[in-house]
Amino acid sequence: MTSGKLTIKDIAKQSGYSISTVSRAINNHPDINSQTRRDIMELIDETGFIPNDSARFLKRTASNSIAIMVKGITNPFFSGMIHYIENYIQELSYTTILRHVASEEDEVLVAMSLVKERKLKGIVFLGGAFIHDMEQLDKLGVPYVFSTIGNLDGRVESAEKVANVAVDDVDAAMQAVDYLISLGHKKIGIISEGLQLASVGQLRWKGYLKSLQKAGIAMDPKLTYEANEGIEHYTVQNGYKGARTLLDNNPEMSALFCISDVLAMGACRALIDAGKKIPEDIAVVGFDGIDMGDYFIPRLTTIKQPQEKLAKATMSLLFDMINKKSGPQNLLYPAQLIIKESTELSKNK
Amino acid sequence: MTSGKLTIKDIAKQSGYSISTVSRAINNHPDINSQTRRDIMELIDETGFIPNDSARFLKRTASNSIAIMVKGITNPFFSGMIHYIENYIQELSYTTILRHVASEEDEVLVAMSLVKERKLKGIVFLGGAFIHDMEQLDKLGVPYVFSTIGNLDGRVESAEKVANVAVDDVDAAMQAVDYLISLGHKKIGIISEGLQLASVGQLRWKGYLKSLQKAGIAMDPKLTYEANEGIEHYTVQNGYKGARTLLDNNPEMSALFCISDVLAMGACRALIDAGKKIPEDIAVVGFDGIDMGDYFIPRLTTIKQPQEKLAKATMSLLFDMINKKSGPQNLLYPAQLIIKESTELSKNK
Repeated sequence: MTSGKLTIKDIAKQSGYSISTVSRAINNHPDINSQTRRDIMELIDETGFIPNDSARFLKRTASNSIAIMVKGITNPFFSGMIHYIENYIQELSYTTILRHVASEEDEVLVAMSLVKERKLKGIVFLGGAFIHDMEQLDKLGVPYVFSTIGNLDGRVESAEKVANVAVDDVDAAMQAVDYLISLGHKKIGIISEGLQLASVGQLRWKGYLKSLQKAGIAMDPKLTYEANEGIEHYTVQNGYKGARTLLDNNPEMSALFCISDVLAMGACRALIDAGKKIPEDIAVVGFDGIDMGDYFIPRLTTIKQPQEKLAKATMSLLFDMINKKSGPQNLLYPAQLIIKESTELSKNK
Repeated sequence: MTSGKLTIKDIAKQSGYSISTVSRAINNHPDINSQTRRDIMELIDETGFIPNDSARFLKRTASNSIAIMVKGITNPFFSGMIHYIENYIQELSYTTILRHVASEEDEVLVAMSLVKERKLKGIVFLGGAFIHDMEQLDKLGVPYVFSTIGNLDGRVESAEKVANVAVDDVDAAMQAVDYLISLGHKKIGIISEGLQLASVGQLRWKGYLKSLQKAGIAMDPKLTYEANEGIEHYTVQNGYKGARTLLDNNPEMSALFCISDVLAMGACRALIDAGKKIPEDIAVVGFDGIDMGDYFIPRLTTIKQPQEKLAKATMSLLFDMINKKSGPQNLLYPAQLIIKESTELSKNK
C-alpha cells in the first residue's frame, strides 16, 4: 500500500475508529484517550499515511502554503515572531515554507509532506528594510505583509499599497530616551543601524533625535554609532564594537540606547571590559524584549515589542487579503518600556 | 510578457550582453563592471524574469531543492549551522526550503522563486533526538542526513543505515568534566536534557558519568537536573530553573556543566541571583561555543562544536548520497574545550 493513495477514511476503517477520532489523534487534540491516540498514530506510521497537520485538514488543498521570509534569523526576536506566526498559520490549516520543527513534532512526517510540491497563498516579510519597488512587489502575484520593518508612511512611495505591521518605532525610541533623560542623563549615546534605509533603525534614530530636541539637548555625532559590519547587523559583535567606539569618541557618555537587545548585550560586554559599571557609570537600554535580555547580567532595561500581538495582526491581515476581505493596511502598535537592572539599581531583581 | 516564459537567453538578447555576463550579474560575480550589473539587474526587475540564484543555474531543473528541518530554532547554535548549510547548498545551485534571507539578498526575488513549485532532492535533519523507525525513513524516498543529533551507533537499531554527522558528544562532555575535576571540583552538577532519548543530552550525560567514574567520584542524583519544560528545552528559562533546583538540592555544588551555552547563561543568572560568584563560588561550563557566550558576563567556558566543519560534512555526505557516490555514513568530529572567565579568573579577558 503506498502512502499516496491513502486517505483519512482508510485510516479510520483500518483502525476501527471514526474519522473524527483519527482527526483528533493526528491533531493531538486533548479530548482523546491517550492509548487510542497511540494506536492510531502507530497505524499511521505503519501505513505511511501523511496526515495534514491541522484540525481542518479535510478541507485542505495541495496549495495551502504560506512562506515566511525572515531577515536576521540570528536575532532571537525573530525566532519568537516565527513561533507565533507558525501557530497562526497552522490554526488555519495552512503550512509554512520557512519552518522550524517544534520539538513535539516528528520531523520525518513534516518532511514527507514537504516532499510533495507546494504553492504559496501568501507571504510574510519579516524584518529588514524596505528596498523594493511596487512594480516588483506586484509581480509576486499573491498577497503579502511586511512585518516589524517599521512604519512605511512618509518614507516610501505608495506606502498605502503596502500591507505593513509594526510598532510605532519613533514613539518607542522616544520612550527609551525620555526615560534616560528623566534619570538626569545628557550624554546619551546610540547604537543604531540602517540610517540611510527605510528601516526600523532609521525610525528609532528619529525617535532618539526627537527626545533630545524636546529636552533641549544638542545631538553629538560622537555619541552616534551605526552598526554595519557582517552579513547581519544586529549582533553582539557590532554592539561590542559600537560601545567601544563611542567610549573612545566621547568618554563622558553616561547612558547608551541600543536599537536591539542583542546589540545592547554586546555593548554591555564592551563597557564592562573598559572597567565601567552598569548602571552606575553607564546606563544601558535595549530594544525588543527578548527572553535572553531578562537573564543577562545585568538584566536589560528594554523596549518590549508586543510580539504575539504583532504576529497575530500580521497573519490576520494576510488572511483577510487572501480571502479578499481587506486591502493592504498599515497597522501600528505601541511598545512598552520595561525597567530592569541595566538602568536602575535594585529594581526588578 | 510573463515571467514564466522568460529565459536567461531573452535577458541576454534584450540587454545586449552575453549569457555569461548576465549570469555573472545575477550571481553577483566580482568579475563584472558594476554599471553593467546594474543595467542587467534593472532589466531583470522590469521583465519579472526569475533568475536562479547560483552560478550553475543554467543546468538547474525545477526540482533542485534541499529542505533543512531544524529542531530548536531558538537555539543560536542552529542559526549558525543553517548559515553554513545554506552556503553549501547555494554553491551547488540548489535551493533551500527552510531559509532565512541573508541581508544582501532581495527577499522579494527569493519569494518569487518560492512561489514556483518545488520538489526535494534531499533533507537535512538538524538537531533533535532520533525517534524514528527505519521503515518510516525509507518512505521519504530521498537521501537524508541527520546532523548534530549525536552518534547513533549502539543506540539505534540499524544505525549503520542512517547517515549521521555529529561531534563525539561523549568525549566532548568528558573534556568539560575532566577539566572541572582538574581544577579540584568534586561536587559537579549537570543540567542535561532528553536522557531517555537517543539525543545529544543522553550522550553528554554519559560523558559526565564516565569522567566522574574515572576520577572515583560517586554520581549524586541531587546534582543532576534534566531540563524538560516548554516546547524547546534548550532555553535560558530551563537553565535558570535547573541551577536554582540544583542549588536547593545540594548547596555544596562548586561547579556546573550545562549541555548547552543557552542553558549555561540561564544557570549563571540563577547563581548570581542566589548570591553566588562565578567562578569563585561556582564554576560553569557550557556547550556549543555560540557567539553570545563569548559576550556574556562572565564570558562562558564552553565546549566548542566545529560548526562550519559539521555543516560541510553534512552537506558533502548528503550530496554524495544524492549523486550515488556514497551510502549512509556515520561521521564523528572532535569538539574543543575553550577556557574563559566562567571557570577561571583573569583568563582570556
